[in-house]
Amino acid sequence: MTTIPSLGYSIEIGDLHQGSLSKLLSEEFSTRKKVIICDENTHEHCVSYLTTSIDSLANAEIIVLPAGEENKILEICMQVWEALSEYKIQRNDVIVNVGGGMITDLGGFVASIYKRGIDYINIPTSLLSMVDASAGGKTGVDLGAYKNQLGLFSTPRLVVCDRIFLGTLPEEELLWGKAEMLKHGLIQSKEHWSTLKTKSASEITIDDISASVAIKNEIVKADFKEEHIRKGLNFGHTIGHALEGFFLDNDTKAHGHCVAWGMVAESLLAAKFGTLPMEEFNEIFAHIHSDYPPIKVERSNLPQLIELMRNDKKNNATGINFTTISAIGVSHIDQSYSEEQIHEVLQELFIAH
Amino acid sequence: MTTIPSLGYSIEIGDLHQGSLSKLLSEEFSTRKKVIICDENTHEHCVSYLTTSIDSLANAEIIVLPAGEENKILEICMQVWEALSEYKIQRNDVIVNVGGGMITDLGGFVASIYKRGIDYINIPTSLLSMVDASAGGKTGVDLGAYKNQLGLFSTPRLVVCDRIFLGTLPEEELLWGKAEMLKHGLIQSKEHWSTLKTKSASEITIDDISASVAIKNEIVKADFKEEHIRKGLNFGHTIGHALEGFFLDNDTKAHGHCVAWGMVAESLLAAKFGTLPMEEFNEIFAHIHSDYPPIKVERSNLPQLIELMRNDKKNNATGINFTTISAIGVSHIDQSYSEEQIHEVLQELFIAH
Repeated sequence: MTTIPSLGYSIEIGDLHQGSLSKLLSEEFSTRKKVIICDENTHEHCVSYLTTSIDSLANAEIIVLPAGEENKILEICMQVWEALSEYKIQRNDVIVNVGGGMITDLGGFVASIYKRGIDYINIPTSLLSMVDASAGGKTGVDLGAYKNQLGLFSTPRLVVCDRIFLGTLPEEELLWGKAEMLKHGLIQSKEHWSTLKTKSASEITIDDISASVAIKNEIVKADFKEEHIRKGLNFGHTIGHALEGFFLDNDTKAHGHCVAWGMVAESLLAAKFGTLPMEEFNEIFAHIHSDYPPIKVERSNLPQLIELMRNDKKNNATGINFTTISAIGVSHIDQSYSEEQIHEVLQELFIAH
Repeated sequence: MTTIPSLGYSIEIGDLHQGSLSKLLSEEFSTRKKVIICDENTHEHCVSYLTTSIDSLANAEIIVLPAGEENKILEICMQVWEALSEYKIQRNDVIVNVGGGMITDLGGFVASIYKRGIDYINIPTSLLSMVDASAGGKTGVDLGAYKNQLGLFSTPRLVVCDRIFLGTLPEEELLWGKAEMLKHGLIQSKEHWSTLKTKSASEITIDDISASVAIKNEIVKADFKEEHIRKGLNFGHTIGHALEGFFLDNDTKAHGHCVAWGMVAESLLAAKFGTLPMEEFNEIFAHIHSDYPPIKVERSNLPQLIELMRNDKKNNATGINFTTISAIGVSHIDQSYSEEQIHEVLQELFIAH
């Protein structure tokens, strides 16, 4: 069991029976009500493992939400709040969120707002949520078409990442989580990148997960409210979010898939118009190209992609904002490129020939 | 202009043109969008005073909500969030809440959740919101029948209490605000109580308001999350909330009205079953009786009142929780009385003969 101290709580990575989960629930919350929030998938694959092997969860109330990012919305939160009120959940009771990022984002938000904030524990069950949502304190939901428009920074009491839950996931899901791990390497640690690029997604170990969480955790501890260095975590996400948004309506692509190719594109920007050596770009391209299916659009779609970047919530008045890299493992925040430069890179990478 | 430093922001009491409001808006937020949130009443009586006398608010977007506590609900928040999204309000823009507690509670909540929190300024326009909501950082809305079920602790950038807005209010409204001021005296300052009891509500001065805000501010600074001494502010509120809830459906009584008589009842508990000298109870009774219309119920309603107290969110497992006083100006948190004792006091004060 690896324990990574974060902002007032710990992230435990390993067998959940060997960490502090059971002790926390049976001591501090011994007389308190427990509520598990999960989705249809984690209800089927993960929740009974918890309720049968952890005594203090045996009688937990269970709130099952429909699966899928499209349910990370305020209307679903209202249903959860009404359920919590009906169960007479009080300020010092506890919520246990069991699921991917949709559940931990929404469940953390629900808990942080209910009666001005009650305690919650996150048990991420996807690789993406383990390496991305476990540290950082971002909670929230979508408002109509606006992603994560509502939310707040808040911290759970405990996060437990147990690899056993990854066994229930298809290889593709692991790949989307691996994209964020690759990002942690590209922005901060050449060593982490080099380790990961030799492995398929299913070969990722507990130690690799711990290394990724540790990188993200150090960044968010230094800049919880994303005022400076935390922006480094947006590498690949300016173009990645634009790709994700573009395909949302008719050919939805996973966040991790879009981020992987967003990192390639932003690396090419850095190689062509910044100081990233072209051989390092080639290394990035080669690995991502070998793992992630290509993403292609029509030439006539490029202006729409750039328009999506222009509306990104990370922008300020001066233009389209990027995190860029000058070498594998060395990142720089608040960089701008011209729309012509972005257009050139998108054309080179994403046009179907 | 009196300036009271609170948790990372200031509460200014006096002519709003002599404080830092104009400077803050025209310097830090010079290039940023401003949004005023108000209700129908403050839109009519207060907002044009602000937009015509403060240049940087001249072009503010104005969101007008229906007046009344019954609109402090999530559905109204959703409409505000949608409006903010349509106005393309960004993370570093600013909201100015202009109104009573309904507007500052809801507006602070809306701002704290939008894009994980944007800055807001509160301009309370009722005596109650000046002395009660200006310090403390409680924001929130109701969920169905559950009062303040959703919310969070957060702090504004600035609070400005300008007495000019009180001129637009009926005497009765001032009386409800005065009840919270009397409470500040009863729990913390005999001097404040003694000053206030010689005055009608309309004779209350800027200095009296400042004294009340200062008392509340010291308490919430010492215990922001209401874990110990902040509970002192609940004096009068256990029975007061029960009265308020009892009359909600067919003969609504103002919060301040119920709190005034709640303080009388809780003082009588303290005099009969605690250590409050009976002559001090008589002094409290005499003043409140002279200012606040009596509240009467049927004998058969007493069990329902006690049931309402039992469901209070301030309770823990051990029973009905009170803040009590042992003398005017000296309070004690986490006190319990038996249901028989409560019944006796309610019968003595609230039964119509």
